[in-house]
Amino acid sequence: MCIEDIHFRREWHPARSVGHRCLARGLSDIAAMGGEPLACFLSLAIPSDLPQRWVKDFMGGLLHLANLFRTPLSGGDTSAAEKITADIVVLGQVPAGAALLRSKARPGDRICVTGELGESPATLERLYSGEKISATTSNRHFYPTPRIEVGRWLRKNKLATAMIDISDGLSVDLAHICQESRVDGVVHLEAIPIAKGADLSLALHGGEDYELLFTAPKSAKLPKRIGGVPITEIGEILAKRTKQTTVRSIDSAGRLKPLRPAGWEHFSRN
Amino acid sequence: MCIEDIHFRREWHPARSVGHRCLARGLSDIAAMGGEPLACFLSLAIPSDLPQRWVKDFMGGLLHLANLFRTPLSGGDTSAAEKITADIVVLGQVPAGAALLRSKARPGDRICVTGELGESPATLERLYSGEKISATTSNRHFYPTPRIEVGRWLRKNKLATAMIDISDGLSVDLAHICQESRVDGVVHLEAIPIAKGADLSLALHGGEDYELLFTAPKSAKLPKRIGGVPITEIGEILAKRTKQTTVRSIDSAGRLKPLRPAGWEHFSRN
Repeated sequence: MCIEDIHFRREWHPARSVGHRCLARGLSDIAAMGGEPLACFLSLAIPSDLPQRWVKDFMGGLLHLANLFRTPLSGGDTSAAEKITADIVVLGQVPAGAALLRSKARPGDRICVTGELGESPATLERLYSGEKISATTSNRHFYPTPRIEVGRWLRKNKLATAMIDISDGLSVDLAHICQESRVDGVVHLEAIPIAKGADLSLALHGGEDYELLFTAPKSAKLPKRIGGVPITEIGEILAKRTKQTTVRSIDSAGRLKPLRPAGWEHFSRN
Repeated sequence: MCIEDIHFRREWHPARSVGHRCLARGLSDIAAMGGEPLACFLSLAIPSDLPQRWVKDFMGGLLHLANLFRTPLSGGDTSAAEKITADIVVLGQVPAGAALLRSKARPGDRICVTGELGESPATLERLYSGEKISATTSNRHFYPTPRIEVGRWLRKNKLATAMIDISDGLSVDLAHICQESRVDGVVHLEAIPIAKGADLSLALHGGEDYELLFTAPKSAKLPKRIGGVPITEIGEILAKRTKQTTVRSIDSAGRLKPLRPAGWEHFSRN
């Protein structure tokens, strides 16, 4: 769901970016399972005084991305509402039994991420601080590219054991994998690929980067890039030591600390 | 989509009814194509101060209906919002080429409806007038039963040429069939099955009854009831006389009048 003043603001986000982000969020969930997107469905509710131009640009952004990933808009609903509300459902497929789940990470696996982390939350911080930012297509906050190709490649080559997309933040999404796989995790802070303009905290806890976080067996031969997207090893999966799953970080001096799931909570700022 | 103060009001509609109506609306679209529902997906956005009890009852109503029609809730999303916003997508299937469309009505076909019309808008009128109404399960406004069985039966027995569900009102939805089939239509006003408490105007223009409106060849042997639901012939399809499709009504005195699509517009009252 993309809801005005919750997930975007009309004064910050061009309509084209809102349409793009809305579909990208759904495609990213398909990517995270190694899936092929098949079709998308849009429910759009808008205030009666919304300029037609806004809707046109929103649809332009959405359909451009839909076209890029061959995911035809195949149905939906429209309604009136007080705040712009867009809900996207993306239908995808994988061969039976081949979906990459969150629950299959095993002790000894490496923890890897695609791309760089923190650009999206860093941009949002600047927007909150009052800065005017032009929505360039290269900025992952405004125009995130879902990692469909990487997800598909990892699934086809059976190189990942578990996968998730980083929508809530690395610390939160890694905790999901560890909890559902009943394992512990350690993240090497100095290994985390931090996007330009971001910092370690945003890379760890910032959301909406829509990169992939996956685990791969120690023996798996991972390329440095998949479809042009850098792959970085940032930690490893360990056997669970206590009843509760723990994820820890380790810094350059070798100090271990708990890495608490602290997603960058956009709701709380509203 | 079901949006608070647009499609329902918290003081009028118990949460259980809102959950039921939300899914019923989606199932009714599947029924209208003669489809088998397979799965549903729910996106639910709620205000932070909404009592947990409301969500529990909403889900209770939705899941009860989902269970009845073997349509497992298979995914979705949650979010914060100012107004309760629920979006349902229902996935259904039909054998390839067998879907009942709006575009296949032919001159000479009979026009038929299931059940009785007007109960839902009549109830809404009473709610608008300030009346307190208890949400009984037999009231189609609060607990509409989607006509999945009738739709499936008509599709299997190849007895319908075109079909739609009456969500916007008979006059509007019949106009959709006539326009998409490029035919004219005549409705016999005295044949329309009017629900208790409703009147002809509500039966013609009231929405959200979720009965089926279909066309059947003159030669088709239609039963009086399908799965216990009465089937009533209310008119016939004619060849188009002018460039524009026209739907007319004929009263007991034989007077013909244009039947203008005048859906009962709930938005306009807000």
